[in-house]
Amino acid sequence: MSDLYISVNGEMMLANSLSINASDLAIQRGYGIFDFLVTVNGKPIFLEDHINRFYLSAESMHLPVLLDKSALIATIEALMQKNNLPNSGIRITLTGGNSPDGYSIGNPNLIISQSLFNYSNQVFDKGLKLITYEHQRQLPHIKTIDYLKAIYLQPTIKAAGADDVLYHFNEWITECPRANFFIVTNQEEVLTPKKNILQGVTRKKIFELNGYTIKEANISLDMLFSAKEAFISSSTKNILPVNSINGNLIGEGKPGPITRNLYEQLVQSKEISF
Amino acid sequence: MSDLYISVNGEMMLANSLSINASDLAIQRGYGIFDFLVTVNGKPIFLEDHINRFYLSAESMHLPVLLDKSALIATIEALMQKNNLPNSGIRITLTGGNSPDGYSIGNPNLIISQSLFNYSNQVFDKGLKLITYEHQRQLPHIKTIDYLKAIYLQPTIKAAGADDVLYHFNEWITECPRANFFIVTNQEEVLTPKKNILQGVTRKKIFELNGYTIKEANISLDMLFSAKEAFISSSTKNILPVNSINGNLIGEGKPGPITRNLYEQLVQSKEISF
Repeated sequence: MSDLYISVNGEMMLANSLSINASDLAIQRGYGIFDFLVTVNGKPIFLEDHINRFYLSAESMHLPVLLDKSALIATIEALMQKNNLPNSGIRITLTGGNSPDGYSIGNPNLIISQSLFNYSNQVFDKGLKLITYEHQRQLPHIKTIDYLKAIYLQPTIKAAGADDVLYHFNEWITECPRANFFIVTNQEEVLTPKKNILQGVTRKKIFELNGYTIKEANISLDMLFSAKEAFISSSTKNILPVNSINGNLIGEGKPGPITRNLYEQLVQSKEISF
Repeated sequence: MSDLYISVNGEMMLANSLSINASDLAIQRGYGIFDFLVTVNGKPIFLEDHINRFYLSAESMHLPVLLDKSALIATIEALMQKNNLPNSGIRITLTGGNSPDGYSIGNPNLIISQSLFNYSNQVFDKGLKLITYEHQRQLPHIKTIDYLKAIYLQPTIKAAGADDVLYHFNEWITECPRANFFIVTNQEEVLTPKKNILQGVTRKKIFELNGYTIKEANISLDMLFSAKEAFISSSTKNILPVNSINGNLIGEGKPGPITRNLYEQLVQSKEISF
């Protein structure tokens, strides 16, 4: 993949030549935002939602963006053409920029990179094991680069034989580090946490799927273990079933029918073929 | 300062030539640690405390350090000799390293940089205005690069005409983003928050100063406004008096005698001459 191109502040260059000045606030103070979207057969999925969220994140973090929306989209298109990688992930990163004092915001660096990504590598049928962990992400509605706790917890997740962590704060479930979370109740309602979460693009699309009552709610730890089904959602994972949480089976401990139905609808809406 | 040298993974190079690969976990996920110490007349201040904390931070974050303690100290000494900058700040940074998947820890990059720093630029007599803000730093005992909330809050601090923010969680005071916090009670006891804070090196040294009862305590928001004096401490700020918090004067709203006495003792112990 070393011959892929990348766009840095609007200029195209070889990806492997990209490096960031060590005085950038991303390196000095972990300050930056990003967004990530997938292309399928050369078509960016839910592009406008990702772009809109990117500009919202930038504005919230007081970071000016060198390119306006249409120029950013044109740059993404140019990059896709140059790289000729129809099934890919596109990451748009905006760093705090080179900071003269290592603390104030500089001129942000806007980096658009593309990498190989293919949904066919995802395994729906396997299902996930989660463990819960008490943590509230800071500025949860903004897609910042802060994954400190998520990466810090990797050995804990591994030691538990789990696939990922599910955050809660006090008794209230929020989200996984890189995915939103849903349960299906015994009344066959599909619920997802309402507050203190990232507004996932896939989460938003799930509300538009048919056949079920899908709504926001406060979900307590107790509610987890009486759920009939549970699943997570993200741009790269689509919908993945959760089989167990803290070693307790959810429903029958295998992908449930409502999760599968929503997954199939979602995949169809994205025109993904396997 | 463009002709200063820097040490990167044990190799000396010109500072302005340093850049970090964009796939480093510091840029991708805000994952890294650092420490910062001051040199006065060519002598590193409290070197061992900073080095010990650095290795503790690295271990806590599952980051291997390329150099052992003695090799790290030797590298710092070589860098100081090369740069010939007697009054300086030295920053030791350890990033998450280049990550193949943008999420798992790679080979951390160890960067030691030196910059001009002089205590004489600090103004004790002016005193600081703080505003309180509810936030608990994640992994507060580890000196990570996470200053997301601190930098996010800069416009809020500026709008309030304040110098810095003082974090609390629920009713309990913790610290400033880059400094520990102390109050002097009406009984002339010097108190500093005990929990959920960074163990500052200067904070530790203050406990060793003479003439006062100095101890850890839980400090509530209410206790702030009945305090006789208040001050902050850090390696770069030594001790700086706090004149007001949220617009309410602390004591008489000017540097108090106990704060001044502790400051003078601290400065003397560091052999700083103005």
